[in-house]
Amino acid sequence: VRNQSSIVKGVTFAERLHALCAERRSHVCVGLDPLPERLPAKVRGADDPVFAFNRAIVDATIDLVAVYKPNLAFYEALGLEGWTSLKRTVEYIGGRAIVLADAKRGDIESTQVAYARAMFEVFGFDACTISAYVGYDAVGPFLSYPGKGVFVLCRTSNRSGDELQNVNVDGRPLYEHVARLVDSWGCGLVVGATYPSELAAVREIARSAPILIPGVGAQGGDVEASARNAAGGPFVMNSSRGIIYASSGDDFAEAARRATLQLRDEIASVAALAG
Amino acid sequence: VRNQSSIVKGVTFAERLHALCAERRSHVCVGLDPLPERLPAKVRGADDPVFAFNRAIVDATIDLVAVYKPNLAFYEALGLEGWTSLKRTVEYIGGRAIVLADAKRGDIESTQVAYARAMFEVFGFDACTISAYVGYDAVGPFLSYPGKGVFVLCRTSNRSGDELQNVNVDGRPLYEHVARLVDSWGCGLVVGATYPSELAAVREIARSAPILIPGVGAQGGDVEASARNAAGGPFVMNSSRGIIYASSGDDFAEAARRATLQLRDEIASVAALAG
Repeated sequence: VRNQSSIVKGVTFAERLHALCAERRSHVCVGLDPLPERLPAKVRGADDPVFAFNRAIVDATIDLVAVYKPNLAFYEALGLEGWTSLKRTVEYIGGRAIVLADAKRGDIESTQVAYARAMFEVFGFDACTISAYVGYDAVGPFLSYPGKGVFVLCRTSNRSGDELQNVNVDGRPLYEHVARLVDSWGCGLVVGATYPSELAAVREIARSAPILIPGVGAQGGDVEASARNAAGGPFVMNSSRGIIYASSGDDFAEAARRATLQLRDEIASVAALAG
Repeated sequence: VRNQSSIVKGVTFAERLHALCAERRSHVCVGLDPLPERLPAKVRGADDPVFAFNRAIVDATIDLVAVYKPNLAFYEALGLEGWTSLKRTVEYIGGRAIVLADAKRGDIESTQVAYARAMFEVFGFDACTISAYVGYDAVGPFLSYPGKGVFVLCRTSNRSGDELQNVNVDGRPLYEHVARLVDSWGCGLVVGATYPSELAAVREIARSAPILIPGVGAQGGDVEASARNAAGGPFVMNSSRGIIYASSGDDFAEAARRATLQLRDEIASVAALAG
C-alpha cells in the first residue's frame, strides 16, 4: 500500500532505482548509522534523539538522495528504543526515497522467510542487503516480494574481505563466482569503492544488476573510479560517517547537505557516466 | 555480572561449553524459533504468548539441555513485541544454560562492534552465530568479550549451501578453507548434520573447536553419524521444530521433553563419543 502512493515508480526494483536516480540526478546513498556518543548536542535532549537526528539529516538531504541506508546494527545496539527509532525513521521517509535495510541477513530458507517478513512487512523497507554464504536460499524468500530489492555481498569494502572473497576458484577469485551466481538470480550486488578494479570486473559480469557501493568517505574509497566502473547499470554509492558526522556541531544537518552535494557532484562529474 | 553467578563455569567459551555438556551429560541444543501460527492454544491467551511458550519449553527441558538457541529472525518478524519476548526469554534462562543468539551477523569491523554490543551487552547472550564472508573483521569485535563464544558458518545444513561452500579452492572445497581460517581465529564452527562426512573433514581440521550442528529433526540430518564425527571436541546438536513443535496440542511441553530426551540419548548412544 505504501508503495502505491510512493514517488518511487517502476515495476521491478532495478527500474525503481534507475528511475529515482534519474529523477533526482543523484546516485547518492546516505547511511543512517547513529552512534549515541556522536549525536550533536542539539538532538540529545529530544524524546527520541536518534529519530530526531535522522529526521534532521533526511530533511536536509532528501532532494539530493536516491537511497537511505540504515545499518541495523546501530539500532540493535540500542535495544528496544533503537528499533522504535528505526521504525519511525522508515515511516518518516515514507516513500520519498528508497529505504534499504543494511542487515546482511543470510540463513536457510525457513529463516529467510521470517527475515523477509521482518524487513518488508514489519519495517516496510524497500530493499535489504544479504549475505549469501548459504546460496540461493538466502535470497529466494526476499525475491517473492514484487518490487522489493536485494543486494548480495560480493566484494566488501574491508581489507580482511580478501580472506574469503579472493580465494582462487578455478583460476578466478571467489567474488567473481559470486557475481555470476547473484546475477543469475536477478539480484543486486555490494562491491566496495575501496576496490574499483574489482568493481569493473563485477560490472563486466553483471551488466544490468543494481550495485550498492559502500566505502567512500570515512573508509577512503575512490569515488570517481568507482562511479566510472559501475556506470552502465544502476548503482548507488553510500557514505555514512562522511555525511552524517560531517560536523559534530549544531550545524550537522547543513554540513550533511554540503557533504551530500559534494558526493553527488563528484559522481556526476565522471564523464563516462551512463547510468 | 550475570556470568559470575551463572552455573556455567570456565574461562574460555569452549571450556564453559565442555563443562556444561559434561555436567548435564547432554549435547542437546534446543532451537527456540517461535511461529505465532504454530503456538499451542494453551499459550495463545497469555500476555506475551511467545515468552509463555519459551518459558514452558525451558521449564520442561532445562535439565537435559546444554544450549538454547533462539533464532533472531523469528523474533524480528514479530516487531517490537518479538524483541521484548526475546529479552525476557534470555533473562528467564538466566545463566542456567548457554544462550546462543542464532543471528548469522557478518559485516565490517565498525558494524560488528555494534552487533557484538547488541548481542552480548544489550541482550546478554553467551554466544552468537556469525557469517564470515567479510573475513576476520566479522569475529574480531565478538572475541574481545572474554568467555563469550562465536560459531562461524562453515558447511550449512541446506542444499543450496553447495553453491558457495563446495566451490573448488585449490583442489579442496571452500568450506575446508573456511574451517582452517576459523580454527586459526579460535572460533567455533557451524556444520549441518545433513552432511556428516563433511563434518568429519571439518573436525579433522579443527580438532578442538566447538561445533554447532544444526539440521536434525525437521531437516532430516543424521544424528548418529554426526555425533560420531564431531566427537573428539566440544559440540552441540540443535533441533528446533523437532522439539518445540513435537506436539501441537496442550501437551507441547511434555512432548518437547520426550523429544529432547530421545535426541540426548541418541547422541549418547554413539559408542565412539569422546566429547
